Amino acid sequence: MMVRTAPPLRPAPFPGIEHATLAGQAQGLRQLSVWHQRLASGATTPPHRHDCEEVVLCQGGRGEVELAGTRHPFAAASVLVIPAHAWHQIMNTGSDPLEMVAVFAETPVAAYLPDGTPLALPWES
Amino acid sequence: MMVRTAPPLRPAPFPGIEHATLAGQAQGLRQLSVWHQRLASGATTPPHRHDCEEVVLCQGGRGEVELAGTRHPFAAASVLVIPAHAWHQIMNTGSDPLEMVAVFAETPVAAYLPDGTPLALPWES
Repeated sequence: MMVRTAPPLRPAPFPGIEHATLAGQAQGLRQLSVWHQRLASGATTPPHRHDCEEVVLCQGGRGEVELAGTRHPFAAASVLVIPAHAWHQIMNTGSDPLEMVAVFAETPVAAYLPDGTPLALPWES
Repeated sequence: MMVRTAPPLRPAPFPGIEHATLAGQAQGLRQLSVWHQRLASGATTPPHRHDCEEVVLCQGGRGEVELAGTRHPFAAASVLVIPAHAWHQIMNTGSDPLEMVAVFAETPVAAYLPDGTPLALPWES
């Protein structure tokens, strides 16, 4: 059991993306990772997929998630349910920062680029 | 893939507890459940445990989590990391509502009371 204060967001080496790992293997977990991410206006994640399910809670701003060629708009209070192995890409389409909590059913979280190569995540995942 | 609007909190048959399931088996998930809960001032969950890991994000108010006879205070921006099978109880010790997002590594979520009997959860879990 651990109670910790959410660590501060830090710039990631993806343009316009700030990241904080709220909980994961470093806190003794084996089944869950929880991230806080902020995308600046216009910023976008790389297209990628994970081996596990992901749920994203949008807590501010607005964006779109692209999946299988279709873009789905979302905003604060939206919940994104992303199946395991599904390619997806999230972009901030608004003028305010896009605030998200992302939950994963594994830790550490593996991510892959469209050519199948692992995406080396620069943060504690 | 699904984008949904977070459903509204609804009163649960536990005194002072409101609940909304943000994502779980009803959204096609097999590995994750995500809940939003609000505890009124003075409200407390039953003591209980789950078979899976749980992470709680406190998003407002203040409370305490009791685990193995020790109470750990927490407040907004706290992250609670609760191991699988660990007995725990959460109480709102402040004067404002205690707002939490709870994440589980299974769906539906099983919960058990101290005498080992399953706690029948009254919501979509």
